[in-house]
Amino acid sequence: MTRIPQRTVERFFRYCQFLHTRLDSGAEFVFSRELAAAVGVSPEQVRRDLMNFRVKGTPQKGYPAREFMAELYAHLESASLTKMVLVGVGNLGKAILSYFLKRRPNLCIVAAFDLDPEKTNRVYSGCQVHHTGQLEKFVAKEKVAVGIITVPAASAQEAADALARAGVRGIVNFAPAQLKLPSGVFLEQLDITLSIEKAAYFARKTSAKERAK
Amino acid sequence: MTRIPQRTVERFFRYCQFLHTRLDSGAEFVFSRELAAAVGVSPEQVRRDLMNFRVKGTPQKGYPAREFMAELYAHLESASLTKMVLVGVGNLGKAILSYFLKRRPNLCIVAAFDLDPEKTNRVYSGCQVHHTGQLEKFVAKEKVAVGIITVPAASAQEAADALARAGVRGIVNFAPAQLKLPSGVFLEQLDITLSIEKAAYFARKTSAKERAK
Repeated sequence: MTRIPQRTVERFFRYCQFLHTRLDSGAEFVFSRELAAAVGVSPEQVRRDLMNFRVKGTPQKGYPAREFMAELYAHLESASLTKMVLVGVGNLGKAILSYFLKRRPNLCIVAAFDLDPEKTNRVYSGCQVHHTGQLEKFVAKEKVAVGIITVPAASAQEAADALARAGVRGIVNFAPAQLKLPSGVFLEQLDITLSIEKAAYFARKTSAKERAK
Repeated sequence: MTRIPQRTVERFFRYCQFLHTRLDSGAEFVFSRELAAAVGVSPEQVRRDLMNFRVKGTPQKGYPAREFMAELYAHLESASLTKMVLVGVGNLGKAILSYFLKRRPNLCIVAAFDLDPEKTNRVYSGCQVHHTGQLEKFVAKEKVAVGIITVPAASAQEAADALARAGVRGIVNFAPAQLKLPSGVFLEQLDITLSIEKAAYFARKTSAKERAK
């Protein structure tokens, strides 16, 4: 399996999430229709995805959940550590730091960066905060693969440029700014405000439709 | 304009973001190709979108930014207050509360809910935190339109059920859980961990490809 499209990778991660939940609840087998319902795709799509793995199911019992999860992780996760840094230790940055603290053995935020002298040289959720001036040197030296940007919109491109120059291969941008990046750097844009505004928009439209009935 | 698809609404919000930046930098006009580059769509798409609005541009100067933004907002924003609540006052919940504090006059988080007695009856970023037991009554009484879920995955469906029973029309879910909702409730799923995992995955794939050259 090479060159898997983004949507497929997302589905694979979601299968993992669901299999986790199932195993936690004591179930050892899972049907493709259950995976389909959980992830929001068709059972045919799930079965096509499953053909990429060696795991075999039966119509009576379904697929073995533990085996399937192990195969998914073998593909999705790296056997070695993937290093990440976070730029911008505001409220959102702190939330992400605390989330990743020790939760994922092979995916680790190894340092955070901020301009505010109140925050630099402190440790948040086990993560050392350095001054943003040290970002490029640190990232290049430590061979950091991913940068997480949680600075305000006006500073996002600058942070992205520094990360790209220092050699990161992936950026997750939470700032509401469209970034320009060199080709070869994967960009994931996550705009929390936009998502909330969109939900508010459709919530209002639905209410208006209901009232019109 | 009725029944605009989700992607269009997203584009419209992104145009607003870009127009804001442009106006802040002193530019009064914008070309469709600039909007296209900023939002990551084709200039043709931008021009098709623009046909929905009365704003007219010229090939020499482009479109008047202020006028276009006013028309976008007139469509996207409500003239009256859209009330939201937030369930789960952890680090991410607090980050969202602090972000929305007074920033948007017509889109307001009117209350937050948590099970932790340490957090209830306190105020975070100007927002009163109540016990989750009071959620349904509050949402129904105050006619809250949108619920933002920032609880752990295991509690997310319960929070969503309570919100839906109480009459919200939109839910933004940050918990890594697939929610089942009654039809008529708009769901926006935002999985921060998944996005970071995905970026790490593609960052590793790119590095591997580079090394193989």
